[in-house]
Amino acid sequence: MKMEINDLLFHRSTWLSADTPRTAAVSSRGRLARNIDGFPFAQCSNPEQRRKMMEMVRNVLEKTGWLIKGGFFELDKLSELDRLFLMERHLISKDHALDEGERAVFIDNDEVVSVMVNEEDHLRIQVIHPGFQLKNVWETINSIDDHIESGINYSFVSELGYLTACPTNTGTGLRASVMLHLPALFLANQIGKILNSITHLGLTIRGFYGEGTELRSAFFQISNRITLGQTEEELIDNIERITGQVVEHENNARDNLMKNSRAKVEDSIWRALGILRNARLISYEEALEHLSSLRLGIEMGIVKDIKLPAVTELFILTQPAHIQKLAGRKMEAAERDEKRAALIRERIGRREEKDV
Amino acid sequence: MKMEINDLLFHRSTWLSADTPRTAAVSSRGRLARNIDGFPFAQCSNPEQRRKMMEMVRNVLEKTGWLIKGGFFELDKLSELDRLFLMERHLISKDHALDEGERAVFIDNDEVVSVMVNEEDHLRIQVIHPGFQLKNVWETINSIDDHIESGINYSFVSELGYLTACPTNTGTGLRASVMLHLPALFLANQIGKILNSITHLGLTIRGFYGEGTELRSAFFQISNRITLGQTEEELIDNIERITGQVVEHENNARDNLMKNSRAKVEDSIWRALGILRNARLISYEEALEHLSSLRLGIEMGIVKDIKLPAVTELFILTQPAHIQKLAGRKMEAAERDEKRAALIRERIGRREEKDV
Repeated sequence: MKMEINDLLFHRSTWLSADTPRTAAVSSRGRLARNIDGFPFAQCSNPEQRRKMMEMVRNVLEKTGWLIKGGFFELDKLSELDRLFLMERHLISKDHALDEGERAVFIDNDEVVSVMVNEEDHLRIQVIHPGFQLKNVWETINSIDDHIESGINYSFVSELGYLTACPTNTGTGLRASVMLHLPALFLANQIGKILNSITHLGLTIRGFYGEGTELRSAFFQISNRITLGQTEEELIDNIERITGQVVEHENNARDNLMKNSRAKVEDSIWRALGILRNARLISYEEALEHLSSLRLGIEMGIVKDIKLPAVTELFILTQPAHIQKLAGRKMEAAERDEKRAALIRERIGRREEKDV
Repeated sequence: MKMEINDLLFHRSTWLSADTPRTAAVSSRGRLARNIDGFPFAQCSNPEQRRKMMEMVRNVLEKTGWLIKGGFFELDKLSELDRLFLMERHLISKDHALDEGERAVFIDNDEVVSVMVNEEDHLRIQVIHPGFQLKNVWETINSIDDHIESGINYSFVSELGYLTACPTNTGTGLRASVMLHLPALFLANQIGKILNSITHLGLTIRGFYGEGTELRSAFFQISNRITLGQTEEELIDNIERITGQVVEHENNARDNLMKNSRAKVEDSIWRALGILRNARLISYEEALEHLSSLRLGIEMGIVKDIKLPAVTELFILTQPAHIQKLAGRKMEAAERDEKRAALIRERIGRREEKDV
């Protein structure tokens, strides 16, 4: 059966579902930038060329057996709400959601693999896995890359590697990243220090809401800045090693918090839960803040009656487009805040709290 | 059996226990200033004279049958904590709690009547009733005043009335007051307007934490400024009439809130409850703020599983001296905040919340 956009609405993406041991790492992601030989870069290609490339990608996915395991969507045929919905699920980029013109995305049923067509590059192949497993990400992404390459000639120059629209992606074309949840470092005001040393190690760290938003939430994405001059394996090893160190810092910060300010930490976790379970109006930014505290509370064994994947899923479901998709219609911000609060109560409230 | 200070700890004062129909009025209070003929005012009297007066008051209370219905406490024999505890229960004034020297208080078992000896005046007779019932307050206070006068000669001059240490109390010596809970006027920023008009009508309005604190909580006390040139009945009628108008304004403001910003009001009420039921550390001022919202929520029928007297009682029990009396020892602020949060959960939490 062909995948529909709305099928995703009641599906829990694979990367949200796992309880991984090193839980400071929420998810591991990789994306490859690839271009098709014989076509101008996406920005310069005409509608006909763009349609032709979409067809080529669709065909190779069909031939290699991928198409049947997911859905292929032409974005200019989707509503803006559906495109934002896919963006919120991390299946397409913001640019891909908001741009115009002939472009598409393939999404596999598990929401592990997505292939954007005619984004900045002709192909952007993305893989997300839950927790801290960049090596598995690399294996998966490598295998789908090989499948696609079996039917499509990539632009490749042996001295440089894969050619890309933006030179920063040239070479391996690989950007690997880990989404980290660092609430203890965040509470202890140690994020600045971490930020600094990571930048010196050739990696990039970004806040949840994008560059420059590092102080707005306890979620961060660490990724490689350079795609050239290293093999994919070296690049992945490097991120994995440094991310491992950051996670260790986070774990130490958690131990310190519990040793030195246990009462304050527990208070802030329970208050967050109290607000989540009782608010009738809540913005996404506020929900994210309290869900972050709740996640910490579950991981530290303070909150016992809520499971981690339910919380991780709420990070996704409470986003504006998701709220509107769940309601089946467009909504103003105030109305979304009400629906969001109700959804949170429904998912993690007690029975009495769900009823009212 | 003789009343002990600690008996009060597990007693719910009568004025806290009622569900009155006009619930914006929390309690009605009256106090009479009286001095004993033939003695200098309390500030000028020597220890011997002060002891003599305490004995005279004690004797007349015994003779008229009051003493057996309560306790007579010499404050210089009580610990500071016990004195603050009595102050928090509104049974003695702050001055009476913190002053030094020979002074006492009689408290009846229902905590309706208290008689301070050697406060600013030789006698300060106080009566508190729940809700809006100044006429009953006046009847009760009048009757105990008559009883005391049957055995003690008051300083009285027929042209002026009862003489008092401070001329503002001369005449009837009566100060009547109503404690009002005005959360809707408070939320709608209409307190300033009310304040202004009440002052023009010869009454005084004060914030919960005393003069000048009108913007810190939704609780207010309205009392008469003048004690001379009016009969007690006129004075009481005047406050009752004006208070009635303020209560009406509050009720209108509540209707408007529900009409115009129902979602916001409900949100703030549920959040307050969520914090009260989940916080692990809470200051008195914050607790008061959320209890105020919760009280509004119960009165408006939004919160249904908590009874009003339980909330009113928490206003008293969560005060610093009460927290320490309940724990049976002195505590630093941080420790009190923890104990306060636990007490609130115990009283109004759900079963699961009480356990943790």
